[in-house]
Amino acid sequence: MKNLAYYNGRITSIEEMMIPANDRGFYFGDGIYEVAMVFNHKIFALEDHLDRMESSASLVRISLPAHKEKIGRLLADLALKVESPCQFLYWQITRGTSPRNHLFPDPEQVASNLYVYSKPWKGVEISDQYRLVSVEDTRFLHCNIKTLNLLPNVMAAQKAKEAGCSEAVFVRDGYVTEGSHSNISIIKDGVFITHPLDNLILPGTERKHMLAYCKELGIPVEERAFTLEEMAEADEIIVSSTSHPSMRAMELDGKAIGMKNPELVEKLRKKYMDEIEAL
Amino acid sequence: MKNLAYYNGRITSIEEMMIPANDRGFYFGDGIYEVAMVFNHKIFALEDHLDRMESSASLVRISLPAHKEKIGRLLADLALKVESPCQFLYWQITRGTSPRNHLFPDPEQVASNLYVYSKPWKGVEISDQYRLVSVEDTRFLHCNIKTLNLLPNVMAAQKAKEAGCSEAVFVRDGYVTEGSHSNISIIKDGVFITHPLDNLILPGTERKHMLAYCKELGIPVEERAFTLEEMAEADEIIVSSTSHPSMRAMELDGKAIGMKNPELVEKLRKKYMDEIEAL
Repeated sequence: MKNLAYYNGRITSIEEMMIPANDRGFYFGDGIYEVAMVFNHKIFALEDHLDRMESSASLVRISLPAHKEKIGRLLADLALKVESPCQFLYWQITRGTSPRNHLFPDPEQVASNLYVYSKPWKGVEISDQYRLVSVEDTRFLHCNIKTLNLLPNVMAAQKAKEAGCSEAVFVRDGYVTEGSHSNISIIKDGVFITHPLDNLILPGTERKHMLAYCKELGIPVEERAFTLEEMAEADEIIVSSTSHPSMRAMELDGKAIGMKNPELVEKLRKKYMDEIEAL
Repeated sequence: MKNLAYYNGRITSIEEMMIPANDRGFYFGDGIYEVAMVFNHKIFALEDHLDRMESSASLVRISLPAHKEKIGRLLADLALKVESPCQFLYWQITRGTSPRNHLFPDPEQVASNLYVYSKPWKGVEISDQYRLVSVEDTRFLHCNIKTLNLLPNVMAAQKAKEAGCSEAVFVRDGYVTEGSHSNISIIKDGVFITHPLDNLILPGTERKHMLAYCKELGIPVEERAFTLEEMAEADEIIVSSTSHPSMRAMELDGKAIGMKNPELVEKLRKKYMDEIEAL
């Protein structure tokens, strides 16, 4: 298939997939999701994504529709059905289909819903041209959970685009938290600095992998919050997400930033490419 | 019909309604909604709801799929199609159907989606038996917008139920903001006290009507935030929403509260009933 959507066992193209209006995702955003990249029909960092899926679901008390491993096998099977070897694979789990009511439906009667889609992707996206715009972080205090409640992220991403930028930088009380759909890290004097894992940021899989690369490469790491000013004065600013693993930012709020330690960025990027090669 | 669902012109029962998985409501919660009560096939406070719909949509930059008045006429027509004279009428508007992308779709190409349902309702709900449980308000700072990003509200409502309560009371920095799906006001020494309209609470239509009743009845009003302690010591605590207009709370976190000025509550309730009678 050119692309594929799956919903509780039913398979169609993404454009043709219909879901019940009573899916709690549709009226409450009552669900969680994951995105993974597929290279050569194999899912990159699948275990990390399944672990985070399990964690997100647990934090919002949604029961998985099947064991984690079984969901992983299903995703792997679906990735084989799409013609393109390189894919953008998305899946979400919502708290089932039932008449609208804030209270959870009876788990004995209502199972959670699994929606998956996969579509061709252009391959690894790397850029040295990211422009950033800062935005006040007014999101909820559960940003560690990868939920479907993404309206503030949508608004911030759109604001970035309209400012001629590639990504918005959320700032809470003067500190950079993350991007609208990415984590943000900086390099200063050879040290890799990134926000600690707490309720203010998503535990990004690329963030996790970069920390592992730093360890392997002997690059010192500080997991701590940094201010917008620190970011403006950093040697490098790295915007990372599953689909855009290591984008270098060269502008923040209209002023030139970073781009002063290309060798270190190159080392991290090579580690990522090596991981893909080894898939 | 026993009940009815409408989606962009298509009409089915609620249970049978299917919507595209690419509706941005389904994967981003990228939309806003309203709930109104229908009595004798007529929509109560329709103008208030249409005004708030317009305000919510504007704040998240969603274009209405039709003029406000036209949506109002459609809702009125739909309410005539359901057999029961008394109905719970829900509608939501999402930012259209398009492949998942945080950025807004091109408004020239993609129109917003209107989903409506109406179902029989039991009539005016009034209770003197509400039990409340306090919950930390960790929601985003856009609670004035009636969006589909309701996961924290779902979690709080469920917590209330599991504590044997009817509603959760959100508390931010010691101050009561609102309920998980209601506004909360108190009466102390004959004064009606309710949170001011800002980004921390929903501008409830019942809250608005109660303020008008107070004015008509000569009851003094203070629009200011009050603490959880003030609430515990208030003469009356009123939990109000469109579907549950004036519920009296008699317990907070396991301790008896309020229930000391039934005459004033009765006057407010009578005003509401008079409004319904005059529909």
